[in-house]
Order: sequence, then structure tokens, then C-alpha cells
Amino acid sequence: MPNLDQYLDQQREQFENELYELLRIPSISTDSQHGEDVRRAAGWLVDHLSNLGLTTELIENGGHPIIYAESAPVAGAPTVLVYGHYDVQPPDPLDQWLTPPFEPTVRDGNVYARGATDDKGQMLTHVKSAQAWLQTEGKLPVRLKFLIEGEEEVGSDSLYRLLDQSPEKLECDVVVVSDTSQFGPGQPAITYGLKGIAYFELRLKGPKQELHSGTFGGAVTNPANTLARMIAALTDENGRVQIPGFYDDVIPLSDQERSQFAELAFDEAAFMQQIGVDGVSGEQGYSTLERRWARPTCDVNGIWGGYQGEGGKTVLPAEAGAKFSFRLVPNQDTKKIAESLRQMLTGLCPPGIKMELIDMHSCPGVLVPLDSPYVAAASQAIERGFGRQPVFIREGGSIPIVTAFSEKLGVDTLLLGWGLDDDNTHGPNEKFCLADFHRGIKASAYLWEELSKIGQ
Amino acid sequence: MPNLDQYLDQQREQFENELYELLRIPSISTDSQHGEDVRRAAGWLVDHLSNLGLTTELIENGGHPIIYAESAPVAGAPTVLVYGHYDVQPPDPLDQWLTPPFEPTVRDGNVYARGATDDKGQMLTHVKSAQAWLQTEGKLPVRLKFLIEGEEEVGSDSLYRLLDQSPEKLECDVVVVSDTSQFGPGQPAITYGLKGIAYFELRLKGPKQELHSGTFGGAVTNPANTLARMIAALTDENGRVQIPGFYDDVIPLSDQERSQFAELAFDEAAFMQQIGVDGVSGEQGYSTLERRWARPTCDVNGIWGGYQGEGGKTVLPAEAGAKFSFRLVPNQDTKKIAESLRQMLTGLCPPGIKMELIDMHSCPGVLVPLDSPYVAAASQAIERGFGRQPVFIREGGSIPIVTAFSEKLGVDTLLLGWGLDDDNTHGPNEKFCLADFHRGIKASAYLWEELSKIGQ
Repeated sequence: MPNLDQYLDQQREQFENELYELLRIPSISTDSQHGEDVRRAAGWLVDHLSNLGLTTELIENGGHPIIYAESAPVAGAPTVLVYGHYDVQPPDPLDQWLTPPFEPTVRDGNVYARGATDDKGQMLTHVKSAQAWLQTEGKLPVRLKFLIEGEEEVGSDSLYRLLDQSPEKLECDVVVVSDTSQFGPGQPAITYGLKGIAYFELRLKGPKQELHSGTFGGAVTNPANTLARMIAALTDENGRVQIPGFYDDVIPLSDQERSQFAELAFDEAAFMQQIGVDGVSGEQGYSTLERRWARPTCDVNGIWGGYQGEGGKTVLPAEAGAKFSFRLVPNQDTKKIAESLRQMLTGLCPPGIKMELIDMHSCPGVLVPLDSPYVAAASQAIERGFGRQPVFIREGGSIPIVTAFSEKLGVDTLLLGWGLDDDNTHGPNEKFCLADFHRGIKASAYLWEELSKIGQ
Repeated sequence: MPNLDQYLDQQREQFENELYELLRIPSISTDSQHGEDVRRAAGWLVDHLSNLGLTTELIENGGHPIIYAESAPVAGAPTVLVYGHYDVQPPDPLDQWLTPPFEPTVRDGNVYARGATDDKGQMLTHVKSAQAWLQTEGKLPVRLKFLIEGEEEVGSDSLYRLLDQSPEKLECDVVVVSDTSQFGPGQPAITYGLKGIAYFELRLKGPKQELHSGTFGGAVTNPANTLARMIAALTDENGRVQIPGFYDDVIPLSDQERSQFAELAFDEAAFMQQIGVDGVSGEQGYSTLERRWARPTCDVNGIWGGYQGEGGKTVLPAEAGAKFSFRLVPNQDTKKIAESLRQMLTGLCPPGIKMELIDMHSCPGVLVPLDSPYVAAASQAIERGFGRQPVFIREGGSIPIVTAFSEKLGVDTLLLGWGLDDDNTHGPNEKFCLADFHRGIKASAYLWEELSKIGQ
């Protein structure tokens, strides 16, 4: 009988083939035409997890099914909830894929397919590591609860309902999620901070129909000019948010964090080349990494009004609008900010304009305490799996479910990302490095061992 | 044989039927599918004008044909160029028309059809008045040159070529155009000032593709935020233009003009109700009429960038843009303004953004001297035709061809509008008041007589 390491080596090809099987299922949760495919992916996982000997359930909770599977309790060892998702984003624009999104293809050591990194490939590392323990040791060193949903890309409604209805089912000591990225190739990372978000849509209505901009311009308030004024007022020229009180509750970056970030081998020139710009800008006094990870921001996500076609049309638009969102750092209060924003914009709204501000969605940021034994265990496991100590990073994106785990289950989440920044998550030619797939499985297998040392 | 007035009374029904004939032809110049219809309208006019005994030509000059017709020279009397156009705007949105746009229908004394007021109906008043003279007196008291184009709604390229190539053909002492409006129902007007225009498109490019606004927000310059900042910088909160030097060449409104405007029975409440707003705003220190007619303005005509669909999408746009235009008053220099604008926007362009500013088109404003004998003659003719002295007004719109007549032919243009502000020019349910159609013919017939008194 092989030991754990030998087993992982022997199974490499088999693990990859299983990943490709799952990637071939176009489980696009937002597209009702793929409802059957979503269900097929769920079924694949149920079969897979129950074949490992885990007690497995397909939970129907109103939307796409949630898969729940658990191993036996382990006395004196923690219970670990492993969260992931089997649904994927739509593959559009299709014509930009070099190979079809649901025909996994290996090039240069990467597998290219929709869902490769987000999240089928990353999620599967934990399933495979559990398999390795069960096949070699006959049991897991901790109790695992797998929670794999099919609505991550469309808002996780079913999962939030489950968290409200049956939090006891999901009771655990810590949550593990692999749905983020390493710091860079060969440099694994633990993400200990996520930004929150507050997303708004602003709609301005002026005259009841488009007017001739010559006959009426200057006399009638133009909603598009007004929109530009309001949006511009949200930030100063360096992107610092101008909403009164916005920074009141921001926890400043600690000196330790700043020096940790500064020590990271962040290549700003390569970063600029990757995104195709010849310069970056942002809040004064903070490095690019600090701004991305740990400073609140305001970005217009969309803006519109009037004539957008070819050539010139001399109209004064009847309406204009914008979508914009703030990325918040932990401790900022989404409600306070929404109120202050509303007050500020109302004050800027001139005669002749009707303003509607829609509070689309929001969630606060989270920070995982770096001094927890779980973080130490994860760090140890990653070092063993990747052959390199992880760095501690934060992330500008928001993962609302992590906030929910914290609020509903009272536990921290370990964000152990095996992906890379340029994996084209949500874009064409999504990929996942196969070496990282195997390193992730290894790190995950060691993680169960390291966590078992903590005690319940 | 009837005299002029009797003839005009007798022919009312016939004149209306002829107008309806012309309105039935969908001569939409911008739509190549209607090329045959445009030509049919031109043919109708050629037949019509030559049947009156005028020397008539169909000038092919590269685009839609121009119709030129002239009467015999009159010794000791001025030559008058009558400009108009037989092409019309597209009728969209079709579903908002109460009756089909090319089936002229009379309701409440108005004829509803595309082109009713802009410009078939107004243009035809001068053809019918010439007919009345020719049928009753056998000759015209002045020499008339009709210049009726088919590209007014698409930029008048053929006509500009004709003005460059054959200005001597169009030599005249004064131009008459009826393509504007009265001050209000029952209150005729002479428009003595037109605004100029300078129209720009601003395109901003940021990252090479849309980015995740969480992962990259705050670190990468957002082109939509930048766009809002640039557009907002063009004006202050009251719409006063902030481009350096913009007001340097503005001729201030004279005290006489201001008191004339103030005396006009302008009903601001009715104006606001007409356009559907509960307030107006604009440059401080000027009345609504002054702002519309005689103060330069800046209006966004269109703005776009990022995600405009339903719901929220957390993207940092790759690009954003806007179309905006300045309405200029006479003596403002379009070139100087374009340069100052470019300099100002370049100064506002932050790292990471590539800016393109496209100078779409421009033309300076014009003022017709109020103390000219032509204006006095027009005033007299209008009073006789409408039974009421005209008021002197300016117009916020631009009629670039009027500037070209001034520059190429060295003559002033009399803008004698028979339309009304609410005629829905370019919109659904365009109309023209039939009583004004007949009053316009009458005023036009008297105009030739009044102008003949001036001498050559």
C-alpha cells in the first residue's frame, strides 16, 4: 500500500482526467438553457464524493443544488468546512477563445477551460486530498464538511438560505476556501483580508424627451452634464473618496503590513504591461499594492446618456445614469456610507433634475487574524506542498460568503488560493496551471494533518 | 383678373393640396433606401418651379440634387436668394406618431407630417408667393433666385461645393430663409442672431481590456471616472464654461437687446411645463431667454463607458467617451476655443489614460445688423402678412449655411420663421399651422414688394 505522497504521485494522470471530465460540463449557472448541465455537474460531484465513502447529500434549496458531504468526526481534532463552487461564468466572448471553453486543452503546462481555476480546479484539490487520505490511511485526520454550491456566480441565494435555516449543519472550527490566487508564479500566498463593496446606480432625469441642444442648451439643466459633476465629486483627482465621513472607520494599515507588502517582489512595470497601461494613479501616499489590497476605492462601472452612435447629434439628453461602486476595507459601515452618499448627491442635484439613487448591494470587508493557529497550520501545509513559505496578502475583491461564514457560523476562513492573477477568471482563455493543481492537492492533504494538531 | 390678395384667398385649398403632395414624398436624405424618393421630391419641385415660368435647373453636384430657379432681372430692384430644403429627417420613432408621417393629416388647424414645418411647408410659402405675383402681375417686383437643396439634414456637402465652385451664380443682395420659428402663436419674429457651434468627441482609453474592479480598482486609472472629471471641469455648477479664454471674444448683450428680450411675453412656467421639468438652471446673471439666445453654452450630447445593462457588473471599464458641444455667440473663434480646450483636457489627463479629442465640426455664430433696410422691409412685410409687428429674437441653434452665405456671398440673411417652438421638428408628430402657412405666403408676397422699394 502506497503512503500519502506516493499515492499523490501515482494518481496525477487520473486526477487530471477527472478534472477534465468536470470541466467538460458547461455548468453555467446564470443561463437557464444550461440548467440540465448544472445539474449534471452536481450529480458528478455527488457520485464522486459518495464513492470516496463520504456521507453525501444533494440539497435542493430553491435554486441550483448544493452538495454537502461529510467525513466521520475525529475526536480531539477540529471540524473543517471546505467551501467551493461547481458553477461557472458564461464563456462569452466565444470568438476570443483559442480552444473551445468546454473542451479542456493543455498548453504549456496549463489546462485551458471555463472553470479551470474558478473554481472547479481549485475546489477539486480538496476532494482529491481527502481521497488520498481515505485511500492510504483509511480515514481523515480532521472531520471534513464539503459545501459545494452551484450559484456562486449568480449570488448564492440557496446557500444563504441554507446558512439561515441550518447553521448547525455547517458548524465547524474553520472554513477553507481555494478560490483566490497565489501572489505570483511559484510564490504561494494566504489571503487574510478581503474588501467589502457598496454598489450603486444613479439615474438622473431631465426634460421629458431629448431636446435640441441649440434651442434649449444653457436654459435647461442637462442631466449628462449633471451626472459628470456628481460622479466627479465622488473622488478627488487622485481617487480619494470625498463623501463626508467615508474614511472615519477605516483601520489604518499597520506598519507591519506596510513593510510586509513592501518586501513582496511586486513588479510594477510588469503589472502595467499586463493590463496595457503606461502609468497608474491613485490615492496619494500609498503604494500600488496598498491601494489594491487595503485602501477603499471608488470606481465607475458604467456610465451612459444621450447619443452614443456615430457622428454628431445635437441633443440635450432626457436622462443619464451611472453604476459605481466603492470597495470598502474592514470596519467601514456600508449603511453609514450609503446615507452620506445620498445626502451628498442630493445636495449636488440642481433644479430641473430628478435623481434616483439605487442601493444595489453591499457587504463589509473581512480580515482574518494573522496570529491564529489555523493560519499557522495553513502556512506550514503550504510550505510543505509548494516547497516555499507563503506570503500574506490581501485582496481587492469581495467574497460576500466569507462575511456570511463569519457572521452566521462565527468562524474565520482560510483563503488558500492556488490560482494566478493572469488566469483570466471570467474572461476568455481561462486557465489553471497543472503543477499548481497537484501542489494544491498536496498542500491540502498536509493541511488536514496540520490542522489535526490544533485540537478541537 | 384677381389682385394679389384675392388670388391668395382663392388659392388656399389648392396651395394646401400641393403642400400635402410634397409631404407625401418620404425624401429622407440620410437613408439610402429613400434615394429614389429624394429624387422624386426634387423632380416635383423642378416641375413646379418651371411651370411658374422660372428658369429652372436640377444641379447634380455629387449628392442629392440641388434645385435652382430664377426669375428675370428687375432693373433698380435687389436680387433675393431664397434658400430652403426639400429633404427631411427620418421619422423614427414611428410608433409615437398618431398618424403616419408621410400621410399628411389635418387636426386642429395643423397639418401633421414629417417635413411639415422643416422645411417643406415653410419653403413652399416663398414658391407660392412668387406664383401669386406671376399669376396676377405677370412678373415679380424683385429678381428671385431659388436655391433648394436636398442635403440640409445631412450636412449640405453639395451646396458647399456649389458655393465654392459657382458663387457668381448665387450673387444676390440678401438671402431669405424660412426655417425657424415665430416667438409664439400669433407673435411673428425676425431672427437676427444664430449661435455657432463647436462639436467634439472625447475618447479615453485605459487598460487594454475591462478589469475586475475589486482586484484592480484604486490601482489603475479608471477612464470613466476620468471622463466624468474632464466633463465636469468644462463648466462650473451654473454651466459657465471654464475653458481659459472662452469668453474673451464674446460680445456682451447690449442694454437694448436685454430690455427687448425682457419685454417679450416669455412664460417661463409654460416653458418648463412644455419640456417637463420643475426648474431650470444656467449661467448666473442672465434670464432664460438670454441664456438660450445669446450666451455661449456647453452641453454633453452623449456619454458612455463600461457596463450599461441591467443589474451590477463589477468592471473597471477599458474605455469611456463623450460627445459634447459648445454653442457659440458671434465673434467667438472656433479655432482658439478648440486649442484652449485641447490644452485644458490634456492637462487633466492622468497617467494610464490615452486621450483622443476629435474636432467633429464647427461654425461661428452670426448676427444680422438690425438697422439694415432689408430688416425694415421684412418687418413691414410681416406686419402686413400676420397683422402684427414682428419681434426681434435670436436663436440658440446654428444654421451653418447662413455663415457660409455671409462668408462666400458677402450678404446678410433674413431669417423669417413661420413655424412654432412646439412643431416637433425632428421628432414624432411634426406639424405646421395651416393659418401660418397662408400668413407666411402673404408676408412673403409683400416682402418682394417691400424689398423692391430699396433699390439695387
